[in-house]
Amino acid sequence: MIKSVSSPTNPLIKNIVLLSEKARARKESGTFVIEGQREIGLALKAGYVPVTFVFNPTIVSYNQLLEQFGNILFETEIVEVTNLVYNKIAYREGTEGVMTIFKMQNRTLDQLKWKTENPLILVAEAPEKPGNIGALLRTADAAGVEAFIIANPNTDLYNPNIIRSSVGGLFSNQVASGTTEEIISYLKKRKVTIFCATLDENSESCYKQDFTGPTAIVVGTESIGLSKEWIVAADKNIIIPMNGQLDSVNVSVSAAILLFEAFRQRIKN
Amino acid sequence: MIKSVSSPTNPLIKNIVLLSEKARARKESGTFVIEGQREIGLALKAGYVPVTFVFNPTIVSYNQLLEQFGNILFETEIVEVTNLVYNKIAYREGTEGVMTIFKMQNRTLDQLKWKTENPLILVAEAPEKPGNIGALLRTADAAGVEAFIIANPNTDLYNPNIIRSSVGGLFSNQVASGTTEEIISYLKKRKVTIFCATLDENSESCYKQDFTGPTAIVVGTESIGLSKEWIVAADKNIIIPMNGQLDSVNVSVSAAILLFEAFRQRIKN
Repeated sequence: MIKSVSSPTNPLIKNIVLLSEKARARKESGTFVIEGQREIGLALKAGYVPVTFVFNPTIVSYNQLLEQFGNILFETEIVEVTNLVYNKIAYREGTEGVMTIFKMQNRTLDQLKWKTENPLILVAEAPEKPGNIGALLRTADAAGVEAFIIANPNTDLYNPNIIRSSVGGLFSNQVASGTTEEIISYLKKRKVTIFCATLDENSESCYKQDFTGPTAIVVGTESIGLSKEWIVAADKNIIIPMNGQLDSVNVSVSAAILLFEAFRQRIKN
Repeated sequence: MIKSVSSPTNPLIKNIVLLSEKARARKESGTFVIEGQREIGLALKAGYVPVTFVFNPTIVSYNQLLEQFGNILFETEIVEVTNLVYNKIAYREGTEGVMTIFKMQNRTLDQLKWKTENPLILVAEAPEKPGNIGALLRTADAAGVEAFIIANPNTDLYNPNIIRSSVGGLFSNQVASGTTEEIISYLKKRKVTIFCATLDENSESCYKQDFTGPTAIVVGTESIGLSKEWIVAADKNIIIPMNGQLDSVNVSVSAAILLFEAFRQRIKN
């Protein structure tokens, strides 16, 4: 049965606003909000469990949702809302007319599943800006990364800016987080070669490495770089050789260059 | 002689605010503003002509400026301002205490100087967001691009968001603009191979190309892609092979992957 809500002060609507704005509300409830048909589809495909679908029938019909998302709708609360209400909760007007509350999935390292014996893994230590994390997720997806691991996370992954800027990459990637110590031990135990992107005395060009075995590429923040633990734990410290006057690129660009160099080596083989 | 200004309504201060906020004010005066010691240093090195230095002596002293920028200070108007005034014109508090009004340089294609016979050129068609243009400039610098050409520009290059997000790349690169038609004719006349990044029927993998000759890599916007003129004019249409569910990366990431593939081929030779 489809419920109707026309009041912006309805508790469900207030809850969606809270979940969008407050990390604490997400943490306490264990839920978060996704906006947009494509992103919701990717989250369902990735096994995320929906709690409530909210849709604006002037933008998208129930039948269209059924066609796109299938039988899961029968098992989930469905709420149709007015334009007024939808505009209050949507990030911008004229989006795809559907938002969904989902349960969080906090994957631990041991829950990561490798599809191949030579996985390519991206580790980001304490990334700061949601937009950067989103861009990293998007690039990781494109480069066919098997797992995206965040060390010492500063923000919760379900920040709406991360979801938006990843354009679905948060759901198409296997994402896990842990402390730097836990991740290093996880990688070492599984004999994954650790390549740290860092400007160090002994850093070697990324173009002289073999990234075809089990490979973790580790990037730090633009402002601080990687912590000592990573640099000590690294099998190789690597740099991207550059030829300019600035000698730096942003973290999502450097991760892209390194991941696609690994990808290039792998598709040749 | 150093002038002092303590009133936020002083005409110079009003002018700096206007130049920061209004493209029209920049266009009409032929001047623009740079904030930050490093960026100003790069602009001076690139031959930009300063009109007025404005500094906050509680952050940086005249002697420090003299040490960093040299004799050019003797030939330029110097104005010291109070904290109150500086905070009004600075992008954020606690920046490096110096802003400079410079004359624009609008370089035409014919004014571009090639340092080598096999230049690597980046062409961006009608890029939209200042942040994207800044990121492209920064990446172009890192990859040792000889010229950064903007086709059919939508924004003036001296938008403060471009300057900031390029972290100086606007000045370390040779930048020119023109219409798509002019640029195609320029490249063809000089026998530069045109590689258009586009998802086309006949597009080939970027990893199967030879980028060691005179090379132009052409990228469009994320929303629209490249115009037909470019795709027809291309010697090769190329794609970055991807392995994910999203099958797209943002324009600064794709430009980075392509430019660094060219760079990789070049440093090997």
